[in-house]
Amino acid sequence: MIRFECDYLEGAHPLILKRMEETNFEQTAGYGADPYCAAARAKIQALCGGTDVEVHFLVGGTQTNFTVISAALRPHQGVLAASTGHINVHETGAVEATGHKVLSLPSDDGKICADQVRKAYEAHWNDKDHEHMVQPGMVYISHPTENGTLYSKEELKALHDVCRELSLPLFLDGARLGYGLMSEESTLTLKDVAELTDVFYIGGTKVGALFGEAVVIANPLLRKDFRYFIKQHGGMLAKGRLLGLQFDTLFTEGLYFEIAKRADELAMRLKQAFVKKGYELRYDSYTNQQFPILPVGHMEKLKEKYSFAFWEAVDKEHSAVRFCTSWATKEEAVDELIRDIEAL
Amino acid sequence: MIRFECDYLEGAHPLILKRMEETNFEQTAGYGADPYCAAARAKIQALCGGTDVEVHFLVGGTQTNFTVISAALRPHQGVLAASTGHINVHETGAVEATGHKVLSLPSDDGKICADQVRKAYEAHWNDKDHEHMVQPGMVYISHPTENGTLYSKEELKALHDVCRELSLPLFLDGARLGYGLMSEESTLTLKDVAELTDVFYIGGTKVGALFGEAVVIANPLLRKDFRYFIKQHGGMLAKGRLLGLQFDTLFTEGLYFEIAKRADELAMRLKQAFVKKGYELRYDSYTNQQFPILPVGHMEKLKEKYSFAFWEAVDKEHSAVRFCTSWATKEEAVDELIRDIEAL
Amino acid sequence: MIRFECDYLEGAHPLILKRMEETNFEQTAGYGADPYCAAARAKIQALCGGTDVEVHFLVGGTQTNFTVISAALRPHQGVLAASTGHINVHETGAVEATGHKVLSLPSDDGKICADQVRKAYEAHWNDKDHEHMVQPGMVYISHPTENGTLYSKEELKALHDVCRELSLPLFLDGARLGYGLMSEESTLTLKDVAELTDVFYIGGTKVGALFGEAVVIANPLLRKDFRYFIKQHGGMLAKGRLLGLQFDTLFTEGLYFEIAKRADELAMRLKQAFVKKGYELRYDSYTNQQFPILPVGHMEKLKEKYSFAFWEAVDKEHSAVRFCTSWATKEEAVDELIRDIEAL
Amino acid sequence: MIRFECDYLEGAHPLILKRMEETNFEQTAGYGADPYCAAARAKIQALCGGTDVEVHFLVGGTQTNFTVISAALRPHQGVLAASTGHINVHETGAVEATGHKVLSLPSDDGKICADQVRKAYEAHWNDKDHEHMVQPGMVYISHPTENGTLYSKEELKALHDVCRELSLPLFLDGARLGYGLMSEESTLTLKDVAELTDVFYIGGTKVGALFGEAVVIANPLLRKDFRYFIKQHGGMLAKGRLLGLQFDTLFTEGLYFEIAKRADELAMRLKQAFVKKGYELRYDSYTNQQFPILPVGHMEKLKEKYSFAFWEAVDKEHSAVRFCTSWATKEEAVDELIRDIEAL
Repeated sequence: MIRFECDYLEGAHPLILKRMEETNFEQTAGYGADPYCAAARAKIQALCGGTDVEVHFLVGGTQTNFTVISAALRPHQGVLAASTGHINVHETGAVEATGHKVLSLPSDDGKICADQVRKAYEAHWNDKDHEHMVQPGMVYISHPTENGTLYSKEELKALHDVCRELSLPLFLDGARLGYGLMSEESTLTLKDVAELTDVFYIGGTKVGALFGEAVVIANPLLRKDFRYFIKQHGGMLAKGRLLGLQFDTLFTEGLYFEIAKRADELAMRLKQAFVKKGYELRYDSYTNQQFPILPVGHMEKLKEKYSFAFWEAVDKEHSAVRFCTSWATKEEAVDELIRDIEAL
Repeated sequence: MIRFECDYLEGAHPLILKRMEETNFEQTAGYGADPYCAAARAKIQALCGGTDVEVHFLVGGTQTNFTVISAALRPHQGVLAASTGHINVHETGAVEATGHKVLSLPSDDGKICADQVRKAYEAHWNDKDHEHMVQPGMVYISHPTENGTLYSKEELKALHDVCRELSLPLFLDGARLGYGLMSEESTLTLKDVAELTDVFYIGGTKVGALFGEAVVIANPLLRKDFRYFIKQHGGMLAKGRLLGLQFDTLFTEGLYFEIAKRADELAMRLKQAFVKKGYELRYDSYTNQQFPILPVGHMEKLKEKYSFAFWEAVDKEHSAVRFCTSWATKEEAVDELIRDIEAL
Repeated sequence: MIRFECDYLEGAHPLILKRMEETNFEQTAGYGADPYCAAARAKIQALCGGTDVEVHFLVGGTQTNFTVISAALRPHQGVLAASTGHINVHETGAVEATGHKVLSLPSDDGKICADQVRKAYEAHWNDKDHEHMVQPGMVYISHPTENGTLYSKEELKALHDVCRELSLPLFLDGARLGYGLMSEESTLTLKDVAELTDVFYIGGTKVGALFGEAVVIANPLLRKDFRYFIKQHGGMLAKGRLLGLQFDTLFTEGLYFEIAKRADELAMRLKQAFVKKGYELRYDSYTNQQFPILPVGHMEKLKEKYSFAFWEAVDKEHSAVRFCTSWATKEEAVDELIRDIEAL
Repeated sequence: MIRFECDYLEGAHPLILKRMEETNFEQTAGYGADPYCAAARAKIQALCGGTDVEVHFLVGGTQTNFTVISAALRPHQGVLAASTGHINVHETGAVEATGHKVLSLPSDDGKICADQVRKAYEAHWNDKDHEHMVQPGMVYISHPTENGTLYSKEELKALHDVCRELSLPLFLDGARLGYGLMSEESTLTLKDVAELTDVFYIGGTKVGALFGEAVVIANPLLRKDFRYFIKQHGGMLAKGRLLGLQFDTLFTEGLYFEIAKRADELAMRLKQAFVKKGYELRYDSYTNQQFPILPVGHMEKLKEKYSFAFWEAVDKEHSAVRFCTSWATKEEAVDELIRDIEAL
């Protein structure tokens, strides 16, 4: 079985394992106060250019999402998000478990726009009984989205501007940020993301690390006491250096960007094969996730040899599915899959 | 200004105030352990017929909703409700503040149906990653709904059956229960409600009391330690007898039903006046809330003399509004309003 | 049975019932936006003298405590309180249910002192791993305390000063505030309380009202969006005027102070009778709660005719008990009890 | 600087890194549904002997504690724990953040006894207002405790029996379980722990793993839907095999026990050196943490070359400190420290 169902099927980039072995018997302080975290922080800060940012390392994405959101909101506030957003669908109500409503906005492709944010804000404040409703307190987006789609620089700028105007912190979930930034369609850099959001994170788990997400906080208000929140929510790794070491490695000589780019290129080869075969695409993705709509017979045939994710039934005879590449995807596996698609 | 904007504009039925005065200097135990609560409980139990129920008294509706829901759910569970449900829209995220997601189901008229519940349940359990999603753990409905609409006995029976089959407790918010049961279209009695739900409440605040909601629990699992939950959420009135006394009065000689019936009749007179005038109705309500769609000019004219609630803009020239009657509405006020509608 | 076990055995001062009856059919806006709330607010603000304060009305004490505390704290913060404090012992973990630890400080008489606050603060911040511990974020005191004891003006001033210095808001639970302010030992006025705390409340439930607590917020930071918190926690009474009307009555011509003073005087007569009889006192209270230590035989004898609260066993032959007077206690009842004590 | 301040200073046992490298490019299902987790589960189940247990893997200790506790309790319940317990002191109120009070019991050495549990339980249920107090719902102990002390089999049996009798699940925090079980004073095996608790965990982070805690649930009631709780609290590692692989390695050929035993032996050599030097011990520990009371001058001298944890000031001239050994401690480091102690 050759697996394409997600982007966390393998371990870590070999350079990471190598450095873990080399440093294994070094003694370091715990909880992120070690030289590897310091080095990784400095590299990320440098990539953020002129923006003054604070960097923290957490273990996983769900944890990062609810830690950031609950740290930013007061009890009567909720977070605006696409109805398809990860926090709204696939985190077992982790945000609600911290006491906050996810205020979902309709979205088909996974994105929301500045105008939706403004309308939701105004709908709240123009209601004479607004105290009876959850107050919008933050905006959550993911880039790329759960559907592989991307915000353009203009779109992100528009979200940034409306959020700044309305005093709503903008939070960007970058669980797959590398695949977004290195897409052939990307108009954004890490520096742009730092400038245009209040807080975001750089996903490691899905882009070369064993695990780990680097939270980057530009807004000074969101920094206050952030380490307490990490600890309270179980995100403070005792051997914090494991996180520092991984991000330090990924941001040495551009490794993070290089491996993400390669995965995107492999995904685009897959996309072309699907299109050439005449399949429709559920979402027009230029990142490492591809969503072809397959005739059910073809889907069953491919399942014999490949694993991939069922997304949704489109009609009785077609289903949308998801194929992911990653930093670890083998070129030969993609070649073989393309041959098998062509042969269907 | 003659007010019709809601059903809690006045104090309480005079008989309630009279009894409060008569008993004012009696010394009773606190927190609901007094003879008036006992008497009210007995009367409500009798009206529930053969169903063995436990009865508790709380101060208000929001408090009752989140107390019941959070008592019933485990932390990873959410409550299914109409998107228009009070808990989803107008309680400042009170359910989420107890850690639980409101799993909203689309609804235009405020009702949900058995099939929606079944589909939501199956969608959850058929997803291979269901542990990444909030598990449906309860069903919340309101009767009448926030839009004045009613469940028929068949509809409630169907909800009851699917909930029983799927082990989902069914909770009925009866903030306006009296107005529902006494509607000319009602096919339900209090006994039916007790039989067909796991827990419900009888609204006092909007039906003759100063304040107070009587929670009726049929499902033994939901009874366990319920008084702790009331206390923890601030719903345990020190002078609990005030609640007992009010419900005892309301359920003496059918007062609750009689005053609700009168309010419904006044509302139906208003409805007929709207229809006769040629207005569309936003919802086809047979209870104390009426939702005509008014030409904006007529709306402005009526505003000079009457207060009523803006509901939503229908188009540039029409708005849906809400007029409520209550146990306290004066017949003359309705007569005058009808004359003014006719004269528009 | 003549009851002395608590101070919420009766209804309300007759003037309150009278006004409720007089105004019963007036139509007013809901949720505290009515003229009675406005009038009561103005009277309380006037009594607070020069301090600029915001006033809100809630239904009960537990609700008020957790609403204020959870509005003031960020998620990683806790509230410092005497180990005997109501929030730490008798509210079913309501504060913890909002996510916050009660950081208890040892206390025998119910009071805490400025030095305890400073030491707890310093212990936190001097610990190199303070991010692993709950950060002190507020100080809670009650006046009178649950044991009937009082803070002197100097003690309250010292607490105020240390709280101001350490940026810890000071919250005073005044469920029995009237009995405290009117005690013959009191050195505090309502104006002092407003000046020396960030937020406090004036208890109505135990001092003449049917129910109700008036929250007075001096600190502007604690005012922001406070009505959302009231609504979210179920404390926003639909017919808010019931609260306004009660406090307006209580603060008309000094009624609140007058009835509290009378109760204190009756309690002091009881105290003298206990002392004269040779009983020790568990706490040296000058307010409406008295805590004599009775020989078990005497306790059993008194129980035949009077109800009072068991407090704690002191030794095999003696128990501390609590007798309360209130605004409603009858002079004849106190006379009779004193005679029976003397006759033991 | 030679470091002894805690037991998570280094990476992982080299066999773990070796296997991570060997398996790095294998493709496996995520979230713990991989063969390595299955293998580790089977090994742990075998060590638990006849007790039927379910095994889950989480990333860290704080996360594990609050996930287990909040899964077990209903909202009005709290967890009984020693006042010194990790959950009560060093987890930033993580348990309270899930809505539950830690009901602390006095303890000097870190242990609590069956009689304390019974008394707390009875004090709750014998209070006539028990609904106004947090209901005890679980018992938390740590073994070894935070002070290095151990429960004997008799003591654990007594706790088990009282918990069974009172229907309170017993939860054992085994963050350092290996060091406890392999102590020369231990009278417990892993099998005993499985038999005598409802749920416990086997700490990996401090005993040879990079990170990871294996939760072992014997009580069927606590198993229901446990994976939802892990996910909701951010503890479900995407690449779950990293946890499985580590525990599989640790429980292959007794590695876990072997490395823990060695660390205990090194700690006992340190203990003997302290005692021989005439120092008092703050706690009489037979595990990998040692707590000598040092003259301040000696403490300062040792600090020049060694790092260790300050515990508490005993008097002006003496401080209790903590030295830890671990699976990674070098024998030469211990030799050198002992020589330096002797030379003080």
